[in-house]
This record gives sequence, structure tokens and C-alpha cells, in this order.
Amino acid sequence: MLGNFSYSNPTKLYFGDDALSFLPKELEHYGDRVMLTYGGGSIKRNGIYDAVIRVLKDAGKEVFEDPGVMSNPTVQKLYEGCRIARENNVDLILAVGGGSTIDYAKAVSVSAWCNEDPWEKYYLRMEDVDNRIIPVGSVLTMVGTGSEMNGGSVITNHEQKLKIGHVFGDNVMPKFSILNPKYTFTVPKYQMVAGIYDIFNHICEQYFSGTDDNTSDYLAEALMKSVVHASRIAVKNPEDYEARSNLMWCATWALNTLIAKGKATDWEVHMIGQAIGAYTDATHGMTLAAVSLPYYRHIMPYGLAKFARFAKAVWDVRTESMTEAEAAAAGLAAMEDWMKDIGVVLHAKELGVTEEMLDGIAGATFLFDGGYKALTREEVVEILKESL
Amino acid sequence: MLGNFSYSNPTKLYFGDDALSFLPKELEHYGDRVMLTYGGGSIKRNGIYDAVIRVLKDAGKEVFEDPGVMSNPTVQKLYEGCRIARENNVDLILAVGGGSTIDYAKAVSVSAWCNEDPWEKYYLRMEDVDNRIIPVGSVLTMVGTGSEMNGGSVITNHEQKLKIGHVFGDNVMPKFSILNPKYTFTVPKYQMVAGIYDIFNHICEQYFSGTDDNTSDYLAEALMKSVVHASRIAVKNPEDYEARSNLMWCATWALNTLIAKGKATDWEVHMIGQAIGAYTDATHGMTLAAVSLPYYRHIMPYGLAKFARFAKAVWDVRTESMTEAEAAAAGLAAMEDWMKDIGVVLHAKELGVTEEMLDGIAGATFLFDGGYKALTREEVVEILKESL
Repeated sequence: MLGNFSYSNPTKLYFGDDALSFLPKELEHYGDRVMLTYGGGSIKRNGIYDAVIRVLKDAGKEVFEDPGVMSNPTVQKLYEGCRIARENNVDLILAVGGGSTIDYAKAVSVSAWCNEDPWEKYYLRMEDVDNRIIPVGSVLTMVGTGSEMNGGSVITNHEQKLKIGHVFGDNVMPKFSILNPKYTFTVPKYQMVAGIYDIFNHICEQYFSGTDDNTSDYLAEALMKSVVHASRIAVKNPEDYEARSNLMWCATWALNTLIAKGKATDWEVHMIGQAIGAYTDATHGMTLAAVSLPYYRHIMPYGLAKFARFAKAVWDVRTESMTEAEAAAAGLAAMEDWMKDIGVVLHAKELGVTEEMLDGIAGATFLFDGGYKALTREEVVEILKESL
Repeated sequence: MLGNFSYSNPTKLYFGDDALSFLPKELEHYGDRVMLTYGGGSIKRNGIYDAVIRVLKDAGKEVFEDPGVMSNPTVQKLYEGCRIARENNVDLILAVGGGSTIDYAKAVSVSAWCNEDPWEKYYLRMEDVDNRIIPVGSVLTMVGTGSEMNGGSVITNHEQKLKIGHVFGDNVMPKFSILNPKYTFTVPKYQMVAGIYDIFNHICEQYFSGTDDNTSDYLAEALMKSVVHASRIAVKNPEDYEARSNLMWCATWALNTLIAKGKATDWEVHMIGQAIGAYTDATHGMTLAAVSLPYYRHIMPYGLAKFARFAKAVWDVRTESMTEAEAAAAGLAAMEDWMKDIGVVLHAKELGVTEEMLDGIAGATFLFDGGYKALTREEVVEILKESL
């Protein structure tokens, strides 16, 4: 736990099957004009929309609807949301949905009153926010991104073939989030599994770096074990409340800055996955799953001790009689078995990636230091080839 | 992870050997009148006092000194602190010290403007705060209680032979805490070890309950492993920055509500330990250490599966060929070995507890439900006898 850092996470969480009952009290802190942001309409089919509208109306709020947030929110949709927020001078953006919807709500919250192109300022140039920020609250209906308790916001520009995430500060984090595990029961299995892998990979991205002994790595292992355990139950019985609640809670803590403390990170699986997303519009978690095994096998020699520790601590591999390299490989093999068990996509081809796209995807992949191996453009192409 | 709960922890943390450099920015948020609360003067010997005073003076603050906070802050000291805070109408209480000092600062923060006896209102009757609260910030110099990021505040009334902790809400938590691991280098070994055991026991108190599968238990195991690992290094080399920083970070997360989520708890080791403290004024962490093994052996049969899991997950005991009872016992044996290694007090007699005190201590022990076994008064006497 070396180096200097600060920790501040003011998001208030309400968790449990009664969590929505705390929304009225939270709404008291904001003005009457609420922008209700949501996705493709599944919340209308499962009753969550009606429940939320009832609370808003009972609280005397004027509701401005902003539906149609897509799974990879586009810069065009962002411009539309900014217009709605600005024209109606909204006091609060209430995002009802998964990570895409909440990411998008944060994008609107910092962009609505931005007096230049927010895509350029906040995504291409990654500048700090210096304009009015509209507060965001969330009602989470799909689990994975951790967006309910962080400042992350990923926006896609299909024309520029770029999918960029900006991690904003604590002034952009949701003020409150409503986490009811039952709201996730009706998420289609493909999305559920993609979300589970997204959680797991968030943890891996922060775990596989460094050589010092660090409390964050122990916490990361704990979250991975809980995710693996709960995921095996959830894929068999999506309505297992205990499993879904543990997954929901793990997702939040996997990406709210805690387990990154004292760590350098390069987030390369996400960088490659996001580039695939910009080219194919594939589901985020599945893009991560498709490139993970080739990527981790590629960097394993540079972080052998950590991969061996991963095998023992997370997968309960009996590593005593193995060499470090054998133990490390056994850990990845156990991870692969689990990925097959829960049914993630293991080949990028299934996501629509073609041989012809590889140079373009590699070119759209941001390359960072901080992990066990800083990748070159050529190595990304190699990993992508293996992922097909 | 069943049940409903909320999570809100607004304390801002600055961590690292450069952490004090963030104090000036935090001070900007408060008025000019700062009450500086500290203990017996060790901060004057190690230079922390001078460093903090310099920052306060440079920030143009008027400083009102409130020294002499004892390791078990008394109700008399509380009344004195309230007088200083009220008479000088202070805008901020800056606590420089360990858990006792910060606990006490929180007590003053809620009590200074209370218009009845705060001991009766906030400790004996445990009421919610309905008066003005003076904000608290902390500079941590001793690790263990987690007071730097929670609402806990323990006050001792020697006349009434009562030591009572009130866990206040997030409006009483420190607004910010400065965590520099180097500030803990000069803590005497006895206090360091007591603090380490305090951290470990905070985790145990939240871990040993329930039968469901819960992310909180995985996180608890992670923190225990990190504490055990770092403590073995720190007792050999108190100036090992990595070990001291991991201990500091574990202490904060062991008791800031995270690992209690979804759990029932009875905190019985603390309840007995606090009663011992009220009778003997012994160091808090050592009172916990002295009663822990008798207590856990006593409740083990009621939570056998969890104790067996503890053996494997925390102590790496190879439990495959053991019965559950054997595994459970092996876990406690491993814990005992570790307690001996780091040098905690294992017998209450060493703390000044006598046979004659046992009935009184048992009578002063609060008894709660929530763990594996709700204790009777007679069982507390039995555990205390074994602890002698």
C-alpha cells in the first residue's frame, strides 16, 4: 500500500428488496423538475417504470422523459439528452437502468451546461468539469459496470469509431443509488452473464499489477471468490435472491475505486474490449470475455508470481507441488473452466469481429502503462488474432 | 446478502506520507476557530504537533487547545471539552491522535450544544442527535479503532463503572481524515500490538454470525489475511512502511460499516472487553485479546461451519481430511499461535482483573443477540474465569 491517494465516495446506497421506499426521502433534496432517463423500455414491461413514476408523482415532481438510451450510448444520444435537460432546466437526472443508462446520465449531467462540444472536451480531451453539474440519482436494474457508485462514463462515437470512458470526480458520482436485487431477475441471461464477466474483469484489471503486498489485492480476491460462487448459482437459478444480491454488491465494490487504492492499472482488457465495441456494437462484458484469455496468457510471464497467487487464492488450486509457471497456468485454466460454465463468449468472431477489422480495432485501442506488460500495437493485433 | 440496508460514508480520506499536504484545502471549508484536540503529548515529541500547528497558522486559523485526552476518554473530560468548544464557539474540531482522541472529538461535536446531560442522552439512552453538530476532522497517529471513518464514539464513566460506545450516523463521522502511516512508526510496541488485535477483532465480531453466503464474509477474510500478514512484519520492523500502511488501511475498512452489511452482530468480545476497561482502565485492544480465546471456544459449537471456514480461508489450514469440529478447533489454534507471535495479552490477570471483579464486570457487560450464541450473565462469568 505505497504511494499517496485520496478516497472519497459520497454516493448513498439503498440496498434490498425494499430499497425503492427510500427514494421519496432522497427526492426531497432536489427541485421539482426531474429528467427520467431509461433504455429500451424493458422497465415498462417489468413494472419498474410504473413504480418509479408513482414515487415521482407522489413527490410532486414534474417528469421529463428521456427514453431510448442504447447499450453503447452514442454521442448523438448525448446531444439529445443535453437538449432535453437544458430546455427543461431539470434539477435532477434519475437514471433507471444498467450501467449504460447511468453512464449516459453522468455524461448529460456534465455536458448539458457545457459551452463547447462535450465529446471533445470531456471524452477526447478528458478535461475536468468546470461548468454546472446536474445531480444524478440511479435506480439500478442491471448489474456489472459499477456505474451506480463511481464517476465512470463511457460514450461511443460510431463515426469516429471510438468508445471512450472518462472517470469523473466525486462531484459527478450519483448522489444516491437504489439497489434492489429483484430488479435484476428479469435481465436476459446473455446480459446477466455479460454483466457477471464485466464485474470479474473489473477486479482482474485492478488485481493484475504490482509486486508489493497490498490490502487491495486481498480485497480483490475476496470479491472474485464471491462473484464466482454467486455466479454459478445465478446462472442455474436467476431468481436466487442471495446470489443476485451478492453479485449486485460485488459489482458496486469492484469498481468504486476501493480496490484500486495503492495500485497502478492499465485497464488493457477494457481498452481492447471498448475498441471492439466501437467496431461491432457488441455487448460490453462479452467483448472483455472474448479477449481475456489471450490477453492474460500473453502478459502472464511478466507477472508470474501474481498469477500463481491468483490460482491458489481465487481458484483454490493446490499449488504446493507446482512450479510458479505451472501454478499460474492452472489458475488461468480454472478461470477458463468457469467462463465456460457460466457461458460467456470466448471467441470474438461470435461478436462480429472479422480478420479485416483487426488493424482498425488495434488502432482504436488506447495503450497504457501500469500493468505487467505495456502492449505494443502489434501485440494487440496478435491478441485479437488469438481471440477470434 | 439478505435484508435491507443503506450505505453512506462521506468521510474523505487522504492517505500516504504526503497526506498532511491536503489539510490546507480541507480547512478552507470551515470557519476560523479550530479546536485542536489531542492526547498526552506524544505528538509534541514526534513533531506532528508542530507540523499541524504550522498548517493551521498558515491557514489563518485561531487555535483553541484541548489537550489531555486519555486512552479511555472520561465523561469528565467530555464535559471539559464541551466547555472549551462552546465558550470559544469553535467551527471545527481537529483531532490529532488515535481512536480515543477521535472518539472523544465526536462526543464533543454532538455534546457541546446539547441542552441536557450528553452522557445520559447520547450514551445511557443512545438517542439520535437533534442539536447542532460541530464538524470533526482527524489526523490519525495510532491505528486500530477505525474511528477515522465511522460514527463510533466510546466514553467511560468510572464512577458508574460503565464504558459505552454509541455509533452515530454519517452526520457525525469525520468530514476528513489524514492517514499518514509514518505517523504510526513511533507508537510504543504495546500500543501497536493492541491496535493490531483491535483491528482483527473488529473483523471477527462482524464475521462470526450468520449462515448465509455473503460478500461481506469474503471481504472480512481478506482484511484478516492482510492484517495477519502485515502484523508479523510490523512487530519485527515497526518502520516497514508497507506493513504499517496496510495495517492502517485495514483498520479503516474493518470498521467503517462495509463488512457489516447484510450481517447481524452482537459485538460480545467488545462488550466484555469494554466492561473490563471500565473496571481496570486497561488498553482496549488487550482487553479484547484477553477474553477472545475463551469466548470463541465457548461459541464455536454454535457456529461450527463458520469456524471451519475461518480455519481454511484465513489461516490456510488444510481442512480436507478433518471433521468440521477438528477444522474449527484448528482455526482457533492457528489464531492463538498468531496472537502469541505478535505478543498480545492472553490473560486478563495481566490487565489487573481479579477474581473479585468478575461478577461486577459480567454485570457491566451489555448482552446482545445477533451472533452464534446469545450469552447469559453466567456464561460471561465463565468466560471471564477462563480468561484470567
